[in-house]
Amino acid sequence: MKYSFATRAEWIMGSPFKHIRLNSQQASFVSLAEELPASDLFPLEALHTAATTVLSSHPMALQYGDAEGFIPLREWIRAEWKQHKQMEMNMNQILLTTGSQQAMDLIARVYVDLGDAVLVENPTSPGCLQILRMQGATIIPVEGDQEGLRLQSLDELIERHHPKLLFVSPNFSNPTGVLWSMDRRKQVLDCCRRHKVLIVEDDSYGDLYFEDTRTEGPFSRRYPTLCALDEHGKGGQVLYIGSFSKTVAPGLRIGFAMGHHQLIEVMGAAKQLADWQSSNLNQRLLYQLLESTTFDWHEHVALLRREYRIRLRLMEELLKRPAWRNARYHLPTGGMFLWIQLPGGLQSELLLKSSISKGVAFCPGTLCCVDKKLGMEAIRLNFTHPGRDELLLGMHLISEAVNEFTARS
Amino acid sequence: MKYSFATRAEWIMGSPFKHIRLNSQQASFVSLAEELPASDLFPLEALHTAATTVLSSHPMALQYGDAEGFIPLREWIRAEWKQHKQMEMNMNQILLTTGSQQAMDLIARVYVDLGDAVLVENPTSPGCLQILRMQGATIIPVEGDQEGLRLQSLDELIERHHPKLLFVSPNFSNPTGVLWSMDRRKQVLDCCRRHKVLIVEDDSYGDLYFEDTRTEGPFSRRYPTLCALDEHGKGGQVLYIGSFSKTVAPGLRIGFAMGHHQLIEVMGAAKQLADWQSSNLNQRLLYQLLESTTFDWHEHVALLRREYRIRLRLMEELLKRPAWRNARYHLPTGGMFLWIQLPGGLQSELLLKSSISKGVAFCPGTLCCVDKKLGMEAIRLNFTHPGRDELLLGMHLISEAVNEFTARS
Repeated sequence: MKYSFATRAEWIMGSPFKHIRLNSQQASFVSLAEELPASDLFPLEALHTAATTVLSSHPMALQYGDAEGFIPLREWIRAEWKQHKQMEMNMNQILLTTGSQQAMDLIARVYVDLGDAVLVENPTSPGCLQILRMQGATIIPVEGDQEGLRLQSLDELIERHHPKLLFVSPNFSNPTGVLWSMDRRKQVLDCCRRHKVLIVEDDSYGDLYFEDTRTEGPFSRRYPTLCALDEHGKGGQVLYIGSFSKTVAPGLRIGFAMGHHQLIEVMGAAKQLADWQSSNLNQRLLYQLLESTTFDWHEHVALLRREYRIRLRLMEELLKRPAWRNARYHLPTGGMFLWIQLPGGLQSELLLKSSISKGVAFCPGTLCCVDKKLGMEAIRLNFTHPGRDELLLGMHLISEAVNEFTARS
Repeated sequence: MKYSFATRAEWIMGSPFKHIRLNSQQASFVSLAEELPASDLFPLEALHTAATTVLSSHPMALQYGDAEGFIPLREWIRAEWKQHKQMEMNMNQILLTTGSQQAMDLIARVYVDLGDAVLVENPTSPGCLQILRMQGATIIPVEGDQEGLRLQSLDELIERHHPKLLFVSPNFSNPTGVLWSMDRRKQVLDCCRRHKVLIVEDDSYGDLYFEDTRTEGPFSRRYPTLCALDEHGKGGQVLYIGSFSKTVAPGLRIGFAMGHHQLIEVMGAAKQLADWQSSNLNQRLLYQLLESTTFDWHEHVALLRREYRIRLRLMEELLKRPAWRNARYHLPTGGMFLWIQLPGGLQSELLLKSSISKGVAFCPGTLCCVDKKLGMEAIRLNFTHPGRDELLLGMHLISEAVNEFTARS
């Protein structure tokens, strides 16, 4: 039969990473393309212990739970984010989701009508772009610099397009890794408040900072989330999105949204029809882990920070090789990605094709830009997933591919 | 700030079960309202063993997995459904989802444009109605009888509305528990094929039949799914939806869609933006359980069937009490629900209010009907979740409430 899909089905076809994933299932393939944390650092043993406790205690762990998520875990998040990130939320302002991706999809579903203007940082994450395409949003990219979004562009674009939403990631934006300055945070918040634009703040990478906090003081005081800056942490102008995918394990699929109870209530209704609820078992596992006396989440994230910093430094060293001579990039101070402008004229998609044939992949910049032309000469490298040997091999293979192109031209 | 939600946010507000759930968290409250399997029959110990194996083997269990789902589990489903349900699918025709609810939401998102006509059985499940409302579908109810959908109504409604989709559940429809006859299955399939209407077949309850198959022969031969009847099990006209929520445990949140690869591909792209993927950990747990030598899925489902049949019989006995004298119902031969037309003039929502105050809840018929008026005098009772004592208590309390109303009138 001939299927008559909805119009929006055309807008979302061509899954960004499918081709890359198919290749990366080969044994020796190195993928620097995806948004993967280090598998070798997962708290496997501690989770195993947690599973034993959860599964030997009560069959309710396997039953349907609350659509909004397991109450003790929401309470844990509430207390932790209050103490360490100066965010003042009540329980009815927290919704657990299937990763941060679902939180973004839910706010888009309940907030964006066909044709509504939505602002995004340029470049932005492929996942965010796909969500907004699905809703038929008019996606408007906002340029930024190393301090964050450029205020003048933001202001002009708001005046011109009257957007409903602004999607940002002030703490290590995906893909650029930019960390916004305090001034820029306040200015962007003020600007959106003035124009009544709701900010969606994705803080999935916010705990992965590489600075030495012993000398500098608490990170979250110097780089507070927009949500923490908003009405003394009470939010309203900001829907905050967090995740345990990068700080514990993505296999649990646990993210969350925090914000005004009106937003959370409507998102909760949409969540219920979207999948009834996320896995109650996984939420109990995570809660058991976080509450366990043998696991310390803060120490675990500190371990990730140390190791990821080492991996980034290794990548930095490898980028000093001749192949990358004319490439431009800013070293991020956190997150999982390095965003590179390729040496003159080199096209990211062509380079990807050649790299895949050598056994390595990265994310081409075109997937991160509303207007593909803007990302044609850029690539995103993930430095957290590959172990050090893989990083060496992967970067060596991409360098080889770069060399072949530059030798030709 | 004043939020400006999308238009569709208005259509979905008022989560059907929120009020009931809030009450059911009280210790002695009995809920016959929800779609819950029996917690006391979960294979807790076997899942514990599976968790030990999965979490002591490989950290990949905690990493992101394939968007389409864990390949060995999809392969298990493919082989099992081929052998026992005569369905002939390839691997690229199977998508794992977060429960059957997500599978329904995904097909609606990629297939239904605003205003498109969609047919549903009347009455139908609250979850299905919420999904279609979210898409802004024009929902057209089709009447049925104890054999299935009435063919003449179906034909007329198709001619009049040119719907894109028909949502059905031929094996123990939610809420009526109707099991369609073989003739009706063939006729509905033919009718939809003739009119090019895609059928979405929810088979979540299909394994919960109470007949004695030793005397009658294999259930799936006498009541094949529409998908199995379609092109010798190759599908095309039917998108099939299954779930392990009712046969293993809902806390794992594992459902799946099977159908033409074009449908599955587009749904897979939508799935990726909706939540990237379902929990890889849970999919590996389920696979480990299904492959374990100490757990037999067929025996487990047979146990559920025996116990659920006993609970239904108990409910049947309790319905012989005077309070229910003028109520009308057909005893289902499977599934999880009993659909009751209340004694003359009694309103389900008023009865619910009074019942909740006594400590028991059920699902009012209004939640299962496109036109609420049609469900005003009906209720849905779940007989699988409450243990026998709870069933006794719950039914006693509802009877009391019914008596109070009928005494007054």
